[in-house]
Amino acid sequence: MSNKKQIRVGLIGTGLMGRIHTNGYKRLADFFPEYEYVPVLQACCSRREANAKAFMERWGYASYETDWKKIIERDDIDAVDICTPNDTHAEIAIAAAKAGKMILCEKPLARTVAEAEGMVKAVEEAGVQNTVWYNYRRIPAVTLAKNIVASGKLGKIFHYRANFLQDWTINPDLPQGGDALWRLDVDAAGSGVTGDLLAHCIDTAMWINGGIKDVSAVTETFVKERVHQGTGKKQAVGIDDACIFHCHFDNGSLGLFEATRYARGHKALYTLEINGEHASIRWDLHDMNRLEYFDHSDEGKVRGWRSIHITDGDHPYMHRWWIPGTSIGYEHSFIHQVADFFYSLQSGEPCHPTFRDAFETQKVCEAVLDSARDRAWKDTGVDWVEKV
Amino acid sequence: MSNKKQIRVGLIGTGLMGRIHTNGYKRLADFFPEYEYVPVLQACCSRREANAKAFMERWGYASYETDWKKIIERDDIDAVDICTPNDTHAEIAIAAAKAGKMILCEKPLARTVAEAEGMVKAVEEAGVQNTVWYNYRRIPAVTLAKNIVASGKLGKIFHYRANFLQDWTINPDLPQGGDALWRLDVDAAGSGVTGDLLAHCIDTAMWINGGIKDVSAVTETFVKERVHQGTGKKQAVGIDDACIFHCHFDNGSLGLFEATRYARGHKALYTLEINGEHASIRWDLHDMNRLEYFDHSDEGKVRGWRSIHITDGDHPYMHRWWIPGTSIGYEHSFIHQVADFFYSLQSGEPCHPTFRDAFETQKVCEAVLDSARDRAWKDTGVDWVEKV
Amino acid sequence: MSNKKQIRVGLIGTGLMGRIHTNGYKRLADFFPEYEYVPVLQACCSRREANAKAFMERWGYASYETDWKKIIERDDIDAVDICTPNDTHAEIAIAAAKAGKMILCEKPLARTVAEAEGMVKAVEEAGVQNTVWYNYRRIPAVTLAKNIVASGKLGKIFHYRANFLQDWTINPDLPQGGDALWRLDVDAAGSGVTGDLLAHCIDTAMWINGGIKDVSAVTETFVKERVHQGTGKKQAVGIDDACIFHCHFDNGSLGLFEATRYARGHKALYTLEINGEHASIRWDLHDMNRLEYFDHSDEGKVRGWRSIHITDGDHPYMHRWWIPGTSIGYEHSFIHQVADFFYSLQSGEPCHPTFRDAFETQKVCEAVLDSARDRAWKDTGVDWVEKV
Amino acid sequence: MSNKKQIRVGLIGTGLMGRIHTNGYKRLADFFPEYEYVPVLQACCSRREANAKAFMERWGYASYETDWKKIIERDDIDAVDICTPNDTHAEIAIAAAKAGKMILCEKPLARTVAEAEGMVKAVEEAGVQNTVWYNYRRIPAVTLAKNIVASGKLGKIFHYRANFLQDWTINPDLPQGGDALWRLDVDAAGSGVTGDLLAHCIDTAMWINGGIKDVSAVTETFVKERVHQGTGKKQAVGIDDACIFHCHFDNGSLGLFEATRYARGHKALYTLEINGEHASIRWDLHDMNRLEYFDHSDEGKVRGWRSIHITDGDHPYMHRWWIPGTSIGYEHSFIHQVADFFYSLQSGEPCHPTFRDAFETQKVCEAVLDSARDRAWKDTGVDWVEKV
Repeated sequence: MSNKKQIRVGLIGTGLMGRIHTNGYKRLADFFPEYEYVPVLQACCSRREANAKAFMERWGYASYETDWKKIIERDDIDAVDICTPNDTHAEIAIAAAKAGKMILCEKPLARTVAEAEGMVKAVEEAGVQNTVWYNYRRIPAVTLAKNIVASGKLGKIFHYRANFLQDWTINPDLPQGGDALWRLDVDAAGSGVTGDLLAHCIDTAMWINGGIKDVSAVTETFVKERVHQGTGKKQAVGIDDACIFHCHFDNGSLGLFEATRYARGHKALYTLEINGEHASIRWDLHDMNRLEYFDHSDEGKVRGWRSIHITDGDHPYMHRWWIPGTSIGYEHSFIHQVADFFYSLQSGEPCHPTFRDAFETQKVCEAVLDSARDRAWKDTGVDWVEKV
Repeated sequence: MSNKKQIRVGLIGTGLMGRIHTNGYKRLADFFPEYEYVPVLQACCSRREANAKAFMERWGYASYETDWKKIIERDDIDAVDICTPNDTHAEIAIAAAKAGKMILCEKPLARTVAEAEGMVKAVEEAGVQNTVWYNYRRIPAVTLAKNIVASGKLGKIFHYRANFLQDWTINPDLPQGGDALWRLDVDAAGSGVTGDLLAHCIDTAMWINGGIKDVSAVTETFVKERVHQGTGKKQAVGIDDACIFHCHFDNGSLGLFEATRYARGHKALYTLEINGEHASIRWDLHDMNRLEYFDHSDEGKVRGWRSIHITDGDHPYMHRWWIPGTSIGYEHSFIHQVADFFYSLQSGEPCHPTFRDAFETQKVCEAVLDSARDRAWKDTGVDWVEKV
Repeated sequence: MSNKKQIRVGLIGTGLMGRIHTNGYKRLADFFPEYEYVPVLQACCSRREANAKAFMERWGYASYETDWKKIIERDDIDAVDICTPNDTHAEIAIAAAKAGKMILCEKPLARTVAEAEGMVKAVEEAGVQNTVWYNYRRIPAVTLAKNIVASGKLGKIFHYRANFLQDWTINPDLPQGGDALWRLDVDAAGSGVTGDLLAHCIDTAMWINGGIKDVSAVTETFVKERVHQGTGKKQAVGIDDACIFHCHFDNGSLGLFEATRYARGHKALYTLEINGEHASIRWDLHDMNRLEYFDHSDEGKVRGWRSIHITDGDHPYMHRWWIPGTSIGYEHSFIHQVADFFYSLQSGEPCHPTFRDAFETQKVCEAVLDSARDRAWKDTGVDWVEKV
Repeated sequence: MSNKKQIRVGLIGTGLMGRIHTNGYKRLADFFPEYEYVPVLQACCSRREANAKAFMERWGYASYETDWKKIIERDDIDAVDICTPNDTHAEIAIAAAKAGKMILCEKPLARTVAEAEGMVKAVEEAGVQNTVWYNYRRIPAVTLAKNIVASGKLGKIFHYRANFLQDWTINPDLPQGGDALWRLDVDAAGSGVTGDLLAHCIDTAMWINGGIKDVSAVTETFVKERVHQGTGKKQAVGIDDACIFHCHFDNGSLGLFEATRYARGHKALYTLEINGEHASIRWDLHDMNRLEYFDHSDEGKVRGWRSIHITDGDHPYMHRWWIPGTSIGYEHSFIHQVADFFYSLQSGEPCHPTFRDAFETQKVCEAVLDSARDRAWKDTGVDWVEKV
């Protein structure tokens, strides 16, 4: 292991994403042992020292900081991993890029297209490797879906639909703001389900099915006021609790997307379905190791939706893991993204989705919010050119 | 049985719906033996004599006609059942109403709101009993869904979504027009999936969740030209192959609807889902004897979606059939509608959906098509007052 | 219709099976219109006159009897349908055969092999058409399963397993005996779940997979005493509440069967699964319109269990019904058996399962009960020669 | 972390289990950070030096050995983890016990009851902490099933059934013996599916439902001869390819178990179902994050099997992981067992299943094989006293 090239990671933000990214770094060498680059847990950062120190000790970071700027300034950091609330992404990423750091940024890239644009400019000017944690691409079933579509098995695509249904904010007594609930605070999050959930669906959709041209959306805020944990006062809720949009893809297919945090009974039900001329595909996150596939070329009498248990060695990423029939979990999507990022360092290719890819997703999100506000169709201006 | 009151039915149209309605009439007395009214198969009608005669012989009608006007004129007909293409509904129904006949009309009520309006006026002026065959209400699982919502178990409703996915028109060589394929001919059908499939979804939705206030829609015609069986020539396809819309219900919930005939792998996948504050419900036509139900008040550790096999004696309509665990089929929804219609004759109540109820559905369909055409939100003008 | 040949049916027993058979007779002409023979509802019979008369009136029989012997004696009866408890099958069937009547007998054929043997002898000596109502063969998905196996698609068969799980007798206060609960009375029923439920599983199994050679079984009676409705006294329960057996088929495959009325949560869960060298099949009665099929020859990456919705025109029996995607129900299996019986009259072939076929099933049932009693393997003596 | 007590592990065997155990050790501190004891990867061992060295380097062991006796002899090893083929378990474990090492032994404990007995004696005399890797107990859904039954929610248990279906040995050209295929070689494995798969099912079953009293079994070897990789010659296959048995539990319930490697379409389908008086439970390994639960006390009309997504913080072990709706995988069952073993060091309690618990499972396995051989019921002699 001694002759591996070490990438010293500075992780900013010690919440759920901080933990799951760290887990990814720590497992890379075990499961992708031939890779040339390995991460080193150099520093973690949280504004609150107790947090920062505890995180360092638990996860084995070599040091900690309480000011993210220190992470950027340190010479012994090669890559910055941004796991903080959305309102900080742009400032941190731009500073990191200017400092010549590689960047792995949590999604959504930013709160707005304007913010995102500056970030893309920064990383491209700096020429630093960059990626955005749209992790669902790396669930083997989703990767296989992408590969099946790319193979042409579906023929012309007619429909793409996705939704992301949750139910955790139904209680009107839940406050907004603060460490745990910044996703309900529009200033910190930029938007509600659009940036948090639909952004995932849009990223996967464009990756698989190409650019989204125009959108027509509706949003709803079911609970109009919540106590803000910063001010302690009841304040208007500025985020979208639910968002639905339909759209046209560049390839002529119709898209349909919905996300909500008010779908009682669904914890994190990200589902997608693609209907093509010859075949169709379905997937959902709750049963993430399965892919459903319908192939019209099967003999008529025995034709049906196939439930494929995505646990064989010839399924994407799965030769890294155990044996057929045995599942992997949510965290593996992050391990795979770590792996692909580190592989990109040796291949010299971009690690998609790059900031530029995520910028296109940001355009769709913004068009969606604009459309909902204006009750009108909006062109997205997306220019989808990602190569796979 | 001799002292039952006989209702002499004249059935117009001998296609699939003609057959399945007839089956309904023939089974009423066996399974609803205490009802006071019974149907008599008095006459069937098809423009083509061979059809009409064969249908009469096969199903046991007492006579046949080749001109629907004869059915209306005959004194020995009490009720007219309209199973013809959509472009004929208004003329037949209005004539039948004027002749004082009861009317059971296939859905959608008409091609347009204007046509439908005349039909409502006619039946209401004539004071004749009337109903429209939105049969899915009478699938026991769907009726139970309605009852659960009406009981208040769901609390405030946040989301209603439904789709109706088919795949039978993907082949571009399929012609339009003619006896079997009039649904592809805009003149006969009025619209494509909007009137054929979404109308069902809208009827169920408003029955369960109340009026739809405004809509924003998109439609698509994937195959632009098809040979017309009437002219023998390739002609522009005027129908919508696919339609998606989102909407607001009067009760503040968001609606999402989609129908298509280009969803490879789905034969007749009508699904619906309702998310409320306390509970949620799901159903799909392919597994029509099941209802999925999530109740948040269940103890946390063992809380999950319940798959209810709707085959017990205390499920709607099911005491009429066999034993717990044994399924009924598609045709039973029509038998139930026949039963409810005949029961309404003795109770003196309307048999919902009446023409007026279906008129409201028509308004939504038209607003949807207008919205898609104009790329703009449309108010529906729905005034939903149906009592249950 | 006038030149159809009429078969005058005398139905003995007016319970659930009496109703569902009658429904079958009444629908034959509508859905199998080209068949040469049609049933006529000539007489029904129940020991209690009120029952017999009400049944006659409700279902449209021409007459009724209160003594089954009258049915046998009447010249205007061509076919006798035996729907009475098991203890009466032999006497009625033998008398009917001697009188030259065709016989349709409910399953199980008899309580014992000895009784069944006399019945086979009687019908074969009399040369009368005969069949036993093992109706599950005629569920389209099950028929398709049979056809798939017969086609060789599975290759060598390794495993056949079936179970039939119910939960309706868990309550120890449920009495035994009487009209409704004779199935719990060993004198009337002969056995418990073995004759009632496993007999179905065995019939299907041998039809699809050939003869069962030997068996090793265990039975259990969970509730040891129940009030008998005849005597009004608490009496020992003589039936098997649950039965499990494993076995060898003639073709070398292993069989596994289980039935119980103590499986909380299952109403009538008859499931079967067949594992072959190249493919496997699964089915269950609760979702009777689906067949699951796994084909190892599918491309590896997209190989999975197919869920086939058995509602297409090229699925067995389904061209008789509605359109793709629309389900049929439990009662249709009986309609199909009526149809196949009436078709057999014009084809001159036996209508399987004949009494002889059912006699072989009886041998397995008896070997199972013997095995459980003696805690030892038992040869069945089955000589399975049914042609398909 | 510095004041944690270190347990230096010597791992013998570098196959799949060696890898997945190692992964468990490496993740303990991250996810169970407050535990007092931590593992140290002190040494790994494989007979082949290249293997041993590569494994050491990949996984970060401090040293390696090629002779397991060296692991036992070393003073710097506290715990021995036995991941070698079954024929070596007894010798290694007895030696390790005598050397005062803690032992974590792969399942099945041994090839025979006699071997197992010596192992139990050794660890109990030595007073060393010991456990056997029946990992499925630690899948959260299975642990929850256990807890539900223990809570009394099911009432009296009537039925317990489990099967473990695979399809990886259907190809007759697959050899037996050697590193990868020792499971097909009876000398190395002791038995086929009985020790490999049913042992898992039996362990879970007795843990949840108590002791198994007697068994009646059948086994089958479908492929009679395979080339042995040791000798290069075709040799008789001595293992059971498939095994079925039924049994009585001490609590009066009936058990039914089946395992096979010839169930085409099933990769590792371990399923279990428990039917009680008031409720039932189902689970399967392919969808390991779900538990199905039926509660008869639910209101009748909305009663059904609940599909519980076992990903909430109040589900067993799940507060250690991510957020509701996000799955964990197969490897987590091993991490949980590592955690429970290390917790047992601080609690001073045994870590079930201990060698003694696994000894009872061994008795059932042996009774099953004896029963199949003799075609007769066998008492197991199980004395199940495990406390939970």
